[in-house]
Amino acid sequence: MKNESITSRDVDFAKWYTDVVRAAKLADYTSVKGCIAIEPNGYAIWEKIQSIMDKKFKELGHVNVQMPLLIPEHLFNQEKELIEGFAPELVWATEAGDKKLEERHAIRSTSETVFCDYYKKHLTSYKDLPLLYNQWCNVFRYEKETRPFLRSREFLWQEGHTVHATAEDAEAETKRMMDVYMWFNNEILAIPSISGKKTEKEKFAGAEYTLTCEDLMYNGVCLQDGTSHYFGQKFSKAYDVKFTNKDNKDEYAYYTTWGKTTRMIAAIIMVHADDYGLVLPPRIAPKQVCIIPIGKSEEVDNLCKIYQEELSKNDIVAYIDNSDKSPGFKFAEAEVNGIPVRIEVGARDLEKGVITFARRDTREKIEVSKDVDIASYTKDLLETIQKDMYEKAKERRDKLTFTAKTYEEMRDILNTQPGFIHADWCGDEECELKVKELKGCKSRCISEEPLITGKCVCCGKEAKHHVIWGIQY
Amino acid sequence: MKNESITSRDVDFAKWYTDVVRAAKLADYTSVKGCIAIEPNGYAIWEKIQSIMDKKFKELGHVNVQMPLLIPEHLFNQEKELIEGFAPELVWATEAGDKKLEERHAIRSTSETVFCDYYKKHLTSYKDLPLLYNQWCNVFRYEKETRPFLRSREFLWQEGHTVHATAEDAEAETKRMMDVYMWFNNEILAIPSISGKKTEKEKFAGAEYTLTCEDLMYNGVCLQDGTSHYFGQKFSKAYDVKFTNKDNKDEYAYYTTWGKTTRMIAAIIMVHADDYGLVLPPRIAPKQVCIIPIGKSEEVDNLCKIYQEELSKNDIVAYIDNSDKSPGFKFAEAEVNGIPVRIEVGARDLEKGVITFARRDTREKIEVSKDVDIASYTKDLLETIQKDMYEKAKERRDKLTFTAKTYEEMRDILNTQPGFIHADWCGDEECELKVKELKGCKSRCISEEPLITGKCVCCGKEAKHHVIWGIQY
Repeated sequence: MKNESITSRDVDFAKWYTDVVRAAKLADYTSVKGCIAIEPNGYAIWEKIQSIMDKKFKELGHVNVQMPLLIPEHLFNQEKELIEGFAPELVWATEAGDKKLEERHAIRSTSETVFCDYYKKHLTSYKDLPLLYNQWCNVFRYEKETRPFLRSREFLWQEGHTVHATAEDAEAETKRMMDVYMWFNNEILAIPSISGKKTEKEKFAGAEYTLTCEDLMYNGVCLQDGTSHYFGQKFSKAYDVKFTNKDNKDEYAYYTTWGKTTRMIAAIIMVHADDYGLVLPPRIAPKQVCIIPIGKSEEVDNLCKIYQEELSKNDIVAYIDNSDKSPGFKFAEAEVNGIPVRIEVGARDLEKGVITFARRDTREKIEVSKDVDIASYTKDLLETIQKDMYEKAKERRDKLTFTAKTYEEMRDILNTQPGFIHADWCGDEECELKVKELKGCKSRCISEEPLITGKCVCCGKEAKHHVIWGIQY
Repeated sequence: MKNESITSRDVDFAKWYTDVVRAAKLADYTSVKGCIAIEPNGYAIWEKIQSIMDKKFKELGHVNVQMPLLIPEHLFNQEKELIEGFAPELVWATEAGDKKLEERHAIRSTSETVFCDYYKKHLTSYKDLPLLYNQWCNVFRYEKETRPFLRSREFLWQEGHTVHATAEDAEAETKRMMDVYMWFNNEILAIPSISGKKTEKEKFAGAEYTLTCEDLMYNGVCLQDGTSHYFGQKFSKAYDVKFTNKDNKDEYAYYTTWGKTTRMIAAIIMVHADDYGLVLPPRIAPKQVCIIPIGKSEEVDNLCKIYQEELSKNDIVAYIDNSDKSPGFKFAEAEVNGIPVRIEVGARDLEKGVITFARRDTREKIEVSKDVDIASYTKDLLETIQKDMYEKAKERRDKLTFTAKTYEEMRDILNTQPGFIHADWCGDEECELKVKELKGCKSRCISEEPLITGKCVCCGKEAKHHVIWGIQY
């Protein structure tokens, strides 16, 4: 049963996206311009994301902290590149009660300034290093065009801020955390991301370099979905973050930051959802199984309960939809909400000794004996779904990955079907800007694969980098 | 070994408090006036608080959401009492990038306005009710005098916002959540709180009534530590929050909110800590046991590891302090950080076949056979400590609980030793204000116990309520 309120994604992708968000009750617009309310179904996904990522961070030795929301202007101004990069997006608090504040305070759009200010005060010796701090919080960026999860003036994220005694350690951390992000996207979100270094033009304001994690959406548009920055001593110099090194000399600390946001929920939708609504990979689904009784009978009710208990005992999150809605309505609701597996327990089916499993990803129905080992069968099915969802997304990504040897080839691809486009580049910003004239196509990241032609796709001169390009959200 | 950096609490309580906060590395001041950085040790306590409270909320059917940080002025203005109550503390965002915002936006100091605005849009039928929403977030109040955790311009909290189809249901929720708070304080934080209704003067701006949870600090000063508000239909009328009731008629929804904050960490300190630093009740301690090896030997190292593994297997959070500091330094560090139990494993002790347990709360040392069933012994000891800490705090609270029959008696008590003061009251605000002239003493809550003299402690007229009074933070 197709949900009539969802536009087809092949007809109007943008409308389809917001339809899916609304139908699954993930978020809604509010009276606060550009800001969303994250509703229970959406927030439950974020909680699941947080719990898995936070556990991994802690395994790697990170600890959580909480720094102030407001940043005094003078602090921001200490790092020119940062303030220049963020200035147009900053929201400023200027009044308290009925008085003007002595100094404007920016609502944090990122927290490098306050972390560096903290480290400046607290770093002493190399013996204290590294400090591996992370914070889960809200940030605010005054975006002009907004869409739920994808780009919202306020969003939730984690921001890691670490200081190290050597450049080597800090660079290792920058890479390690990008590896964690890639693991999370691939293994948990079933999103086959790619990663690499950003070009100078696209890197984070003030960073030495930025590693990025890039996803390809169903429509061939790219999404930046996690970045890890190496700052070297740039910020430590601006904020005077020093420690005493092994030779008993003052040295500026080596600094990294890395972040991933509620935008991940947009990626899940645009990679996995379909015209029937949300599709959640089992490992990130807050509710993995919906058990639906059909027809009133004691046997139906008992079996539903037994299944639910058995699944819960085996760490599978299952619930029974006991509402007085019709079975058809319940099916559609579980579907629109992206619940990976639906188990239909019907009085008539039971006469034949069977129950029905329905996979959300393929919408396939499977009849199974009612005496099946419910936990082990469901566990296997959830794993299969997780794997299949990844494979399907990877197949699509590969199909939408192209190679361009010339500017004309690039134009043709972008006019026909956008995607990840591999093409060589001379390293010149002018050429990047010229590629941008093609539907706003930008460099996503520098690939470590060998050069393709050895000539820049744009100017034809000697190429320095094999770059992956694409249109971005 | 007394930590020299901690002032005695009997000498200068205020200084002692900040000394404990700094020595245990819970939080520090920042360059942002009135705002603190919550450091790893402090944030770990908050995470533990969150995990236990959140689990309880969810067991009771609550779900988490996230509403916007910024509140447009017109929305705030819809509820006069709320804006009047909060106006002096509101911080206003007025600029974005280099432009003035069309409308001022307040940084949330509480979220009744945005929740009501959301409910207005989404409520339809009584069938959807109740909606039991909660959010964990930061709020901002422009306080003049601030102290870490106790009163900070920005703080973290949870705010529950629920809508119900009947007054009865909403009142039951108001009471239920105060019961949860009382359970949490008593059972988890080992704080013997009292609870009751606030007077009209002290209730939350715009509420029908407020239930409060009040703690007594070591120095006899009171701390409000959690409130639950019943709004009836007051806010729903101001924000037009309606639903269709069973008779198919429009009805304004019944609304409750309730909140508890990082101030709990201040309460833990001011109830339990001592001149040696922080003392954490075992149930809220992020790390419950510190194992300290003394002297280098294979047996010492092996035993430490075995103990740690055995404890972890039994859900006791234990760590080994393997740093190259001296044992004395390690003892002091575990002490200052409030770790409930320290296990000293010494080469010389092992020759005698014993290890030493040290309780943080009593600082008592207990020799135990090295072959003790480590998990069960430690578990029992942690439970004993939890219970003893509660009893000790309750004894002190009872000792500092007084009864005043006249204004003069009240003055004498407040001049000698403040605490919870029971006294009858006529219900007149004037008398409340006159009591306040005594060292700022305020009504904490209305007790349900019978009247004491039947006469108002202030004016001597007929009393309406048995009230508990005290000086507050």
